[in-house]
Amino acid sequence: MSFQNPVFIPGPTNIPESLRKACDMPTIDHRSPLFGQILHPVRANIQKVLKSKTAEVFIFPSTGTGGWETALTNTLSAGDKVLAARNGMFSHKWIDMCQRHKLGVTIVETPWGDGLPAERYAEILAADTNHQIKAVLATHNETATGVKSDIAAVRKALDDAKHPALLFVDGVSSIGSMDFRFDDWGVDIAVTGSQKGFMLPAGLAIVGFSPKAMAAIAKATLPRTFFDVRDMSKGYDANAYPYTPAVGLLNGLKASTDMLLDEGLDNVFARHTRIANGVRAAISAWGMDLCATSPDVYSDTVSAIKTPDGFNASDIVDLAATKYGVAFGTGLGEVAGKVFRIGHLGSLTDVMALSGIATAEMCMADLGLPITLGSGVAAAQETYRTTA
Amino acid sequence: MSFQNPVFIPGPTNIPESLRKACDMPTIDHRSPLFGQILHPVRANIQKVLKSKTAEVFIFPSTGTGGWETALTNTLSAGDKVLAARNGMFSHKWIDMCQRHKLGVTIVETPWGDGLPAERYAEILAADTNHQIKAVLATHNETATGVKSDIAAVRKALDDAKHPALLFVDGVSSIGSMDFRFDDWGVDIAVTGSQKGFMLPAGLAIVGFSPKAMAAIAKATLPRTFFDVRDMSKGYDANAYPYTPAVGLLNGLKASTDMLLDEGLDNVFARHTRIANGVRAAISAWGMDLCATSPDVYSDTVSAIKTPDGFNASDIVDLAATKYGVAFGTGLGEVAGKVFRIGHLGSLTDVMALSGIATAEMCMADLGLPITLGSGVAAAQETYRTTA
Amino acid sequence: MSFQNPVFIPGPTNIPESLRKACDMPTIDHRSPLFGQILHPVRANIQKVLKSKTAEVFIFPSTGTGGWETALTNTLSAGDKVLAARNGMFSHKWIDMCQRHKLGVTIVETPWGDGLPAERYAEILAADTNHQIKAVLATHNETATGVKSDIAAVRKALDDAKHPALLFVDGVSSIGSMDFRFDDWGVDIAVTGSQKGFMLPAGLAIVGFSPKAMAAIAKATLPRTFFDVRDMSKGYDANAYPYTPAVGLLNGLKASTDMLLDEGLDNVFARHTRIANGVRAAISAWGMDLCATSPDVYSDTVSAIKTPDGFNASDIVDLAATKYGVAFGTGLGEVAGKVFRIGHLGSLTDVMALSGIATAEMCMADLGLPITLGSGVAAAQETYRTTA
Amino acid sequence: MSFQNPVFIPGPTNIPESLRKACDMPTIDHRSPLFGQILHPVRANIQKVLKSKTAEVFIFPSTGTGGWETALTNTLSAGDKVLAARNGMFSHKWIDMCQRHKLGVTIVETPWGDGLPAERYAEILAADTNHQIKAVLATHNETATGVKSDIAAVRKALDDAKHPALLFVDGVSSIGSMDFRFDDWGVDIAVTGSQKGFMLPAGLAIVGFSPKAMAAIAKATLPRTFFDVRDMSKGYDANAYPYTPAVGLLNGLKASTDMLLDEGLDNVFARHTRIANGVRAAISAWGMDLCATSPDVYSDTVSAIKTPDGFNASDIVDLAATKYGVAFGTGLGEVAGKVFRIGHLGSLTDVMALSGIATAEMCMADLGLPITLGSGVAAAQETYRTTA
Repeated sequence: MSFQNPVFIPGPTNIPESLRKACDMPTIDHRSPLFGQILHPVRANIQKVLKSKTAEVFIFPSTGTGGWETALTNTLSAGDKVLAARNGMFSHKWIDMCQRHKLGVTIVETPWGDGLPAERYAEILAADTNHQIKAVLATHNETATGVKSDIAAVRKALDDAKHPALLFVDGVSSIGSMDFRFDDWGVDIAVTGSQKGFMLPAGLAIVGFSPKAMAAIAKATLPRTFFDVRDMSKGYDANAYPYTPAVGLLNGLKASTDMLLDEGLDNVFARHTRIANGVRAAISAWGMDLCATSPDVYSDTVSAIKTPDGFNASDIVDLAATKYGVAFGTGLGEVAGKVFRIGHLGSLTDVMALSGIATAEMCMADLGLPITLGSGVAAAQETYRTTA
Repeated sequence: MSFQNPVFIPGPTNIPESLRKACDMPTIDHRSPLFGQILHPVRANIQKVLKSKTAEVFIFPSTGTGGWETALTNTLSAGDKVLAARNGMFSHKWIDMCQRHKLGVTIVETPWGDGLPAERYAEILAADTNHQIKAVLATHNETATGVKSDIAAVRKALDDAKHPALLFVDGVSSIGSMDFRFDDWGVDIAVTGSQKGFMLPAGLAIVGFSPKAMAAIAKATLPRTFFDVRDMSKGYDANAYPYTPAVGLLNGLKASTDMLLDEGLDNVFARHTRIANGVRAAISAWGMDLCATSPDVYSDTVSAIKTPDGFNASDIVDLAATKYGVAFGTGLGEVAGKVFRIGHLGSLTDVMALSGIATAEMCMADLGLPITLGSGVAAAQETYRTTA
Repeated sequence: MSFQNPVFIPGPTNIPESLRKACDMPTIDHRSPLFGQILHPVRANIQKVLKSKTAEVFIFPSTGTGGWETALTNTLSAGDKVLAARNGMFSHKWIDMCQRHKLGVTIVETPWGDGLPAERYAEILAADTNHQIKAVLATHNETATGVKSDIAAVRKALDDAKHPALLFVDGVSSIGSMDFRFDDWGVDIAVTGSQKGFMLPAGLAIVGFSPKAMAAIAKATLPRTFFDVRDMSKGYDANAYPYTPAVGLLNGLKASTDMLLDEGLDNVFARHTRIANGVRAAISAWGMDLCATSPDVYSDTVSAIKTPDGFNASDIVDLAATKYGVAFGTGLGEVAGKVFRIGHLGSLTDVMALSGIATAEMCMADLGLPITLGSGVAAAQETYRTTA
Repeated sequence: MSFQNPVFIPGPTNIPESLRKACDMPTIDHRSPLFGQILHPVRANIQKVLKSKTAEVFIFPSTGTGGWETALTNTLSAGDKVLAARNGMFSHKWIDMCQRHKLGVTIVETPWGDGLPAERYAEILAADTNHQIKAVLATHNETATGVKSDIAAVRKALDDAKHPALLFVDGVSSIGSMDFRFDDWGVDIAVTGSQKGFMLPAGLAIVGFSPKAMAAIAKATLPRTFFDVRDMSKGYDANAYPYTPAVGLLNGLKASTDMLLDEGLDNVFARHTRIANGVRAAISAWGMDLCATSPDVYSDTVSAIKTPDGFNASDIVDLAATKYGVAFGTGLGEVAGKVFRIGHLGSLTDVMALSGIATAEMCMADLGLPITLGSGVAAAQETYRTTA
């Protein structure tokens, strides 16, 4: 493992030097006040990153998947109904988790490449007059398709229907990289992990609960212990955890969120948009299309690029790994073999992005696709040099 | 945080230099064959550490608590009966988890300081003629009391009763430090974490399943997703995980288990016994008693030391932290304020142990306990220099 | 300091992850046998990298400049004559050092961009019939101009003249990256540092002495203490140093030379040639010229690129640093403002090189040079993808 | 190399976690303004550590020995006379260096264990009426004997004689740990290294020049290049170095001096005195004597302990290394085999010191010396717990 080239997978992302060092921490007593000096600032910082004044923040030694399970098991009971659209692998997996926990899921099948269908949500919620739907699930950014959805529109669907269901949002590949407004959008539970916008190793599930979500805990009967936010909450009050926390990762998260807040969230988002614009300019110069069906749903953290019919897009990913030592993402689920993905989130400069674009060009040329070497790079260079 | 002194908490333990570096790893693509080069050797090594030829090893980005939940939710169903003794905080917590998952727990209340009452297990199992008890829970080493239990005796109780219940063993603070025999003892599920004998940061739940435990999965109806070993198993076959793995920690676990196996497990255990003997010699020289009620249950990884009536043992822990920058463990639960704990597991030399003993002496003298400075150190020195 | 992009200066070079960790070492007793376990393998490895069976290797906590001073002061006396050509900044500086030490330097002024004039050396040596010239100085690779010289030809000049002068070679920016043959070329002293081909931080002067150079020590009267190889030699025999060694860097050098030897020196050199070919293809596509005047003197570790008259080449370096966070090298001495330099040695992949080329293109376009964006990248891509 | 125990050699010292990380730095362009952001604060900090307002600070990629050579070669000429006392290995080595550089040394032989004989200096300086002595050499803290000398008294000797000689002080094992007053004491050149009080790896020679020392440079004719402060000075003005600087170590030195100045120099010195007092209490409890002949010359950074006649003190050092993995210092030169040394400088807590004392006790007992185990520890504990 030579670790020379950056990775271009949509997470885990490249870890900045300073965060590497923040995570690489000797053992401290996690039941001592020292630990509180890490824990409390982290929670306050996450609140700010979520753009919330009231969210209760919980951080588990787990991953985004554990964050989803935290959301479901702490607020729902077997037999409860939830509403969810399936427009990619991650929304699919969340639906599957609901079903395993014996929740009744109203699934809105949605083309992979489209955003969440807020208008369908609106119809279903309006029709649910006796409020059997207890929660609405929304994936803010579908990592599998590079599609961002309009969470404000989902909130509006709830509000228009005067529907009391909780709004759960998967922000795993958006939070910390793209604008996310917990309070403005009336999010009830937001879920993310350490390994995307926070530029850390995987190992933390990060969730925010609104007061309404907190209120739902008492009635929820799905069994949980590891992910029980009540134990977590009690622990926090004593500078502690219900079990052993991942102290180094939390220290890394403190450093990471300090870094994001110091840069300014809007600057962070603009930086992601700029890098994404360069990647999209390259894709356009190649004459290729995104999986995302329209500019309003283009993700600023990952681009899924459609390859011609009859071509196995995963070959690009394999060749990049074996021939050039560069990691891209394959297509998942319905789009497996049809797209390859360039992750462009986290700690990534324009210069680093150019090396990823140049590598993709070489791979495509190697595999016989009609790509002019340097064409995508030139388009991205023009984007970057005029916006630096 | 000056990080100058070693910690003497019973985990997380002091992280050796080489393991710090193994964990501090740049991002790789966890869906690439590179990841398999970490994952598969780790699982094989853990099997060896468990002294098992057949255990299926699963490693979650979680903690020992998550390991317990993995054991319960993958093999049991709501309403199932389990048998467990409560002789310390960690056996207590596991019982609590069973109850939250609607399992019927037959609890054998046991004095904190005693080992697990195998003879009571035997009676209860013999009486359970229609085999309603589906699992027997056993905490191999009670971290709260410094008490080790005889798992072979629990197995014998099962065998003598010809009882088919599964045997689940919490080896969080024993595995990798004290002799643990998965196959010989007929353990069905063993649970541990990364942060004790493996000398790593917290963040991994490590569990081993016997073939019999694997067979129980199909019928188990407790809901689980994050901790579902079926998904994990399927992922492993593809060099992958059902979600993002904690790659650096796994790489650390590979290095840690290589280190333990290179030293030789029996040498590792003898090393722990030797360090523990020095600590116990010091305690004896102080004229103090262990919480553990007899030598056959003395733990080689942690000693809980009883302080005189009317004295708050936690004051020692607080003073050590604030005045000397040294971390000991407080008493938990029933023995809160009555004991303080010296962890002596993982990466700890005789020389390091002496500094902990010397610190405890200073604290006790500072707080007015009738301790002769140097007395415990001298006893430990004699132990160490004659056995080095 | 964000450390995200690679550096493209001709040293210090990018430090591989594994060498970072090898250098980052806790304190050991440098007077203990432990130190010998680092020192002796390092010296043996360096011998192999020099392609020598007999060179005595000395390693000082210093830099290449200290290596030069080691060469001069251990073998020469005030008033001794040396022969040297000046074809760049580093040969110039070495001449200056000779003069400060009261050596009589016969200087062959040589155009910056040309290699060492072996034929002029031959004439001068032939004319020096009473052998007043005690040493011939040769810079193998002029870092300032990107020019490699033919050391075998210099040796031939000495041999043809049957001249007994010592041959001192500055291999600071060649050894470990370009073919260097200590024994075959009859080198008497080779000088290098840790921060170029060895991919380490600066801080070590590395010198090899032939038996003939060792024999010259006794008569040399230039004062020296820190750089006295006799003390160093005596120290080595006792696993030690005459003063405190830079243990971590030496440990890094052990790892670095292991890495180079494991890859195979010829593979290392071929790798450097391949990367250099891509950079040169880009320069050619830009329609620009190298400072090096002909292909036989093109350096495989650094390219100095001439910019048009009236253009300040250093502006490219400044803009790359401030606008893109990328480090190139400026022109030095006679070629200051006339060239900028791309270092392409050490730990550098094709993918990394492409990012440097792309950055140079953006800078030149930004500064109004008639560069087609992507043109150099495309030429380099073609080179790389057909040779990977 | 397990790196578990602290080292107790009198340098290199234990490196604090934060300094390890400050040194472990990726490559930057050392000719860019970034480098100035490290260099200039370091030089300003060193001035403060020297308690000087006017000292010009120079930092070489070298060691203390290189610092000595810097002092001599930049200010003196062959044939110049210097005055020096020899009271230990390091004063001896400095005298030897003078002689190699053809300086005429007036040597005052002084018992090893005594401080510098200021009164003999006074007599010699008074007698040198035509001021042939150009420099007076003084070793502030003899690392070999654990003896501190009175530099103010040496200054007084010069002043009383109205003698214009320069005063050069070796503060390698005192600066940053014991009070050092460059301006108050009229020091002209102070020399130290990175690996003692600054708690860093070896690799930096740090020297301060008074205005008078700076003025002496022009006339000095000893040859020098690597150690020429004129080149260094010119480089600094351009944020640069005359050759490649050891950037990571300099960054470490910035962090180290920030740390010392944040703590407050007087607090740092008091901390060293406290730790030393504990060690001396232990030695006294053992009934052993220091090599240092009286309390006014006891060093606060290293103690050399005399062992009984007929006993080889180095056996303690060897046994500590092989049996316990602990590094102490052997006796050097005249006191080889007669003393062993405990270094107690840099990053060392009372708790760490106790582990060193306990180890020394075990070794002495193992080797048959009449030591009561725990006796020295108890004395040190009493010292530490009453002064914490």
